[in-house]
Amino acid sequence: MAPTCFPKHLKPIEPQGQVLLQQERSKATFDIKHLTEKIYGRHYLETKDRILSILVNDPVLNDKSHRYYTGRNIRFKKAMRAAKRMAELIKEHQWTPEEINIADMLFDEAGPFRLHRSMFTPTIEGQGTEEQKKLFLEPAQRYEIIGCYAQTELGHGSNVRGLETTATYDAATQTFVFQSPTLTSSKWWIGGLGKTATHAVVMARLITNGKDHGPHPFIVQLRDLVSHEPLPGITVGDIGPKFGFGTVDNGFLMFDHYRVPHVSLLARFSQVDKITGEYIKPPNDKLSYGTMVFVRANIVMESRYVLARAATVAIRYSAIRAQGSDAANPKKIMNKVGVTKTVETPVLDYMMQQYRLLPILAQSYACHFTGEAMHRMYYENQARMADGDFSYLADLHASSSGLKSLTTTMAVAAIEECRRACGGHGYLLSSGLGQFYQDYLPKATWEGDNYLLTQQTARYLLKTFRSVRAGKNFDKNFSAQYMTEYLTHPKAQCPVTEANDFTNPETILTIFKYRVAFMVEQTVHGLDVEKRTWNDMLVEIYRISRAHCQLIMVSNFFQGVFDDKTTAGQSNVISAALGDVSILYALSTLEQEVADVLTSGYVAPAQSLLLKQQVIATLKKVRPNAVALVDAFDFPDYLLNSALGESQGKVYERLTEMAEREPLNHTSVVDGYDDYYRPLIHAGKSNWELDANGVAHLRGYLDDARRPAKL
Amino acid sequence: MAPTCFPKHLKPIEPQGQVLLQQERSKATFDIKHLTEKIYGRHYLETKDRILSILVNDPVLNDKSHRYYTGRNIRFKKAMRAAKRMAELIKEHQWTPEEINIADMLFDEAGPFRLHRSMFTPTIEGQGTEEQKKLFLEPAQRYEIIGCYAQTELGHGSNVRGLETTATYDAATQTFVFQSPTLTSSKWWIGGLGKTATHAVVMARLITNGKDHGPHPFIVQLRDLVSHEPLPGITVGDIGPKFGFGTVDNGFLMFDHYRVPHVSLLARFSQVDKITGEYIKPPNDKLSYGTMVFVRANIVMESRYVLARAATVAIRYSAIRAQGSDAANPKKIMNKVGVTKTVETPVLDYMMQQYRLLPILAQSYACHFTGEAMHRMYYENQARMADGDFSYLADLHASSSGLKSLTTTMAVAAIEECRRACGGHGYLLSSGLGQFYQDYLPKATWEGDNYLLTQQTARYLLKTFRSVRAGKNFDKNFSAQYMTEYLTHPKAQCPVTEANDFTNPETILTIFKYRVAFMVEQTVHGLDVEKRTWNDMLVEIYRISRAHCQLIMVSNFFQGVFDDKTTAGQSNVISAALGDVSILYALSTLEQEVADVLTSGYVAPAQSLLLKQQVIATLKKVRPNAVALVDAFDFPDYLLNSALGESQGKVYERLTEMAEREPLNHTSVVDGYDDYYRPLIHAGKSNWELDANGVAHLRGYLDDARRPAKL
Repeated sequence: MAPTCFPKHLKPIEPQGQVLLQQERSKATFDIKHLTEKIYGRHYLETKDRILSILVNDPVLNDKSHRYYTGRNIRFKKAMRAAKRMAELIKEHQWTPEEINIADMLFDEAGPFRLHRSMFTPTIEGQGTEEQKKLFLEPAQRYEIIGCYAQTELGHGSNVRGLETTATYDAATQTFVFQSPTLTSSKWWIGGLGKTATHAVVMARLITNGKDHGPHPFIVQLRDLVSHEPLPGITVGDIGPKFGFGTVDNGFLMFDHYRVPHVSLLARFSQVDKITGEYIKPPNDKLSYGTMVFVRANIVMESRYVLARAATVAIRYSAIRAQGSDAANPKKIMNKVGVTKTVETPVLDYMMQQYRLLPILAQSYACHFTGEAMHRMYYENQARMADGDFSYLADLHASSSGLKSLTTTMAVAAIEECRRACGGHGYLLSSGLGQFYQDYLPKATWEGDNYLLTQQTARYLLKTFRSVRAGKNFDKNFSAQYMTEYLTHPKAQCPVTEANDFTNPETILTIFKYRVAFMVEQTVHGLDVEKRTWNDMLVEIYRISRAHCQLIMVSNFFQGVFDDKTTAGQSNVISAALGDVSILYALSTLEQEVADVLTSGYVAPAQSLLLKQQVIATLKKVRPNAVALVDAFDFPDYLLNSALGESQGKVYERLTEMAEREPLNHTSVVDGYDDYYRPLIHAGKSNWELDANGVAHLRGYLDDARRPAKL
Repeated sequence: MAPTCFPKHLKPIEPQGQVLLQQERSKATFDIKHLTEKIYGRHYLETKDRILSILVNDPVLNDKSHRYYTGRNIRFKKAMRAAKRMAELIKEHQWTPEEINIADMLFDEAGPFRLHRSMFTPTIEGQGTEEQKKLFLEPAQRYEIIGCYAQTELGHGSNVRGLETTATYDAATQTFVFQSPTLTSSKWWIGGLGKTATHAVVMARLITNGKDHGPHPFIVQLRDLVSHEPLPGITVGDIGPKFGFGTVDNGFLMFDHYRVPHVSLLARFSQVDKITGEYIKPPNDKLSYGTMVFVRANIVMESRYVLARAATVAIRYSAIRAQGSDAANPKKIMNKVGVTKTVETPVLDYMMQQYRLLPILAQSYACHFTGEAMHRMYYENQARMADGDFSYLADLHASSSGLKSLTTTMAVAAIEECRRACGGHGYLLSSGLGQFYQDYLPKATWEGDNYLLTQQTARYLLKTFRSVRAGKNFDKNFSAQYMTEYLTHPKAQCPVTEANDFTNPETILTIFKYRVAFMVEQTVHGLDVEKRTWNDMLVEIYRISRAHCQLIMVSNFFQGVFDDKTTAGQSNVISAALGDVSILYALSTLEQEVADVLTSGYVAPAQSLLLKQQVIATLKKVRPNAVALVDAFDFPDYLLNSALGESQGKVYERLTEMAEREPLNHTSVVDGYDDYYRPLIHAGKSNWELDANGVAHLRGYLDDARRPAKL
């Protein structure tokens, strides 16, 4: 037991957090469990519960107690231990990829085998020949080799064509010679490379017979399987401390005339003839765009989880944390002897707090319905492509790029906003939001930089607009449809006359559609008529993508809740509750972006004032369900690891327990005192006097009566 | 030397960072040193250089090399060491408060003595009697006692009236009895309390003769001066890990019937009669509002520094980091043999990057001019108050609250935006922006929560509007003036007809004024006519304060650059360059907030399109001076501690050096390998074969020719 302990008999001031959360839960208009099932489906929930029970009973993976307290040295070692244990559990229980994902989500810490599973083995599977799969994939699945994915370089991120590392084929020895020509060509950021991986998929410029064919994937062994020492010709290490992700050994890698055998080039698509060194081109592969859609649908689903998790912590805590008093609506409680007294107001009752937090909750549900729609469209499109119909692919791919950007940008902002909305205590790591933010952040950069990606989306929208306007587009996809609508009614006006009209989904959707189409038209005008450069238009291009994807999110959300035909019992009340949430998502988004629709002239100034009013009205509608709506995401305390967001509301008990675990509290006098504080303090010794108990004070501090002796 | 080293002969890809930065600097329209002097004045710069030279030559304070690499245990111990050394230097050089601030800024790490200097000694100075100053202040200034400031409690932050800790006067023993009645009454967040302070200023509810007089300040001894052990009746410790600030021991403190002598109540204003226990009320003190203005002016000046520092790193790095190519304006260089080739484009040439970063640079200059104006107005107002004229106080105090909120919110956002604008490498701690963000963040919460504070500002503006409209306000202050103007011209329209009209300072200023007055009018209408509650209007109230303060910032910036009458030589070109920056600040702010002026009807939709164009045009004007404008803030590399922002542009050399220092790289095989990786990898042993050098590979990986033996 730590020598520094809080008095165990003391309780927090009334009312207690548990009671407040119970009150919140009892106010909800729907049954939380029903909504949880609607979100995840029974199969997923059963799987999750099964895996959770394995993890919380596991002697290694149950332990998260060090996470907020130790430096990288200890955390990385514990991450290695957890990685091994997770690998064992995967083998033991023969977990499917879905089950592994659930376990990773619950354990909630990226580890050194992360890229082995998510990039190394899938790349061999997708791009290796049968021979290569046999050679590399099988041992990889048994963790007898551990891999990483080495693409980015110190000087080269998103632009793959700029990579410098070369792999030159030497037909005489039938080997590829890997070379790092400059310092900037060092592979960099590669997860699991620093201290862990035995092998890497390396992207290097393939040069054969004097010709550079650009970046291609190779399997390269980096370390000796016996000793784990780097092989001669390889310089490898960890890139050093990061803002988060201390439990992953992101690494660097340089090659000095490093030779690998011919079998190293992943040869399912491109090949090099072993004898002649002749390069054999890959076939065109439109299908791989389909896979990107799937990956991005998963990222959107993950954003849902990130938003909901941050909202869970901030909303639960805001229902408990009390401060000041709302004069128009003071909070009163009755004490044990029946006397009513005024207490401080829970901050969630303040409109500003609702305005900050409830839209984040709404965003999480918005991501849920869009993620579901993307999965559905992915499968529909795959079926269409199998029938030779590629007409939906471009739209789907373009939208998925922008949606990755929009939802991860939103999720990053939400964690930090939720952390700040927890006031001072949000700054404690025991809030659970600080490390979460640090570890989630890279998502905005990897799998496509969030700014660059939007150019893909916008490029497609501009092209679509030009062809629709020229009467040459007969696609029935979503984008072409709303642009056609816009061009058919160029002088349309928003029909809203009172605030309540902003609860009509059709009205809202039309505003969002008009907004994007107008912005696209302006940008086409800028590029085609005013002849402005692409670079000059980048800001508008970013905004177009964002606007288009916000429209998609609103549209999917409305479809998900208003087109739901099951109207019996709980389904009915849940649809009503989610209906309010969908309106909140749409209106809070619209309010934030209202300059666009005012600029277009579609929405008039007076309507924009009504919109503000309706946002406040909608927040009030959603407020009573706030805790229930986050509860429905069903995040276990094991995952949240948060004093503020704990399911039972014991905020202050948990905060003080977590403070007791601080290593500095393990001794009552701090290590270093003798060297750094004592010399300063003891320099004043001549000015001390002792009290009756022999304790030293400044002379004059004690009353005469209590002053027994001089030092 | 670490076993993992980058090859020393390799250089980054051409062109080199140094060359790129030199090109940027030579493009500037003004002399950087002149601008630096204009910002700081010669006296400050000389002082800064003198102190910098002491620090970089000091064996203790020179060392920042551990900062990004170690856990809290080591960092806190090093912070204790640095605190002692800083205390010694302060005594040795007899540094003034200004000099201490400079040293703290350069050393750039909050330490355990921080609150001792910034809150403990000033509180005794301001609120202690002469006897108390002699007793406590003199030893405190010699660091023979070390203090902290214990106000906030676990359950009580901004609302001081909610504090629970009591100090009950016992006339019989002439002592105050301190008591912590609940868990939530624990003092919490107190900097320097956890393991360091011997004494605290404690805010506790003063109870005497049965009556509660609310929170009052006491000086309380916490630890034995001999042993540093907490005294009986005191529970004290560290509150545990935080998002940043690991080098400060923020602490908690609970009292169990802890008695302190009568002299402990800081008695310059309120007193308790020693014999009767009678409470003697403090006089009203309007003057203390003046002090708050001064503190907040300093916070605005600090925001300037935060914004400029983040911009320095991101802008320098963006001038070096190259990615892709701008088709309309490709970047070309000539190599040593005179051949021109196309290279990747520095990201600062992309409009989106300029749009993200240059407004932050402009914000830093905006804070500079507003901070200067606040200092000036503080002194003017102090002089007026000395003459009995309090008519400027309310306006100044209200504006200073909102400015603290606006500028710190802006600074927090800027660090993170700059970090992200550095792409992947911004996520490395060696970027210098990650820890900077973590350590600066609390500023948005302390010294007044950034949301709560805005209520003070808005309350004043609403009151002013009501009185101006009623014809009862004859103040000549800024706010009353622009509201009068608005009410005199209720149907005014923005006169802009072409994009270039948005470069007219008068035109811009009028838009900002009209905006605030309209918003205030709307809110007064909501409260007074529609009878909406204060709580329902909190969102608008926040916005009003923000809008008012943005107006102040634009106004001060314009005054600072366009009213500058010194037009000779460098002053002239500097004014021109800063004029562009001021327009950028105003227009980028206006674009972000344009919904307000569209909603008011003052700005028409077509004008809003012109505004967007002019923002882009202004970015292009500022772009050539970007590096020079950050250079002018003159941050030494010792302060920046950043591989990306280093003054000489050796980005990649520094990144790789800093990676080499990562502790994980001190051994080539990671500690933990034997326990966690080896068992997995060696399970595949039967599938290995050795090459000619005895290195183990997967069987089948090596070519036949190179396969000498089986394991």
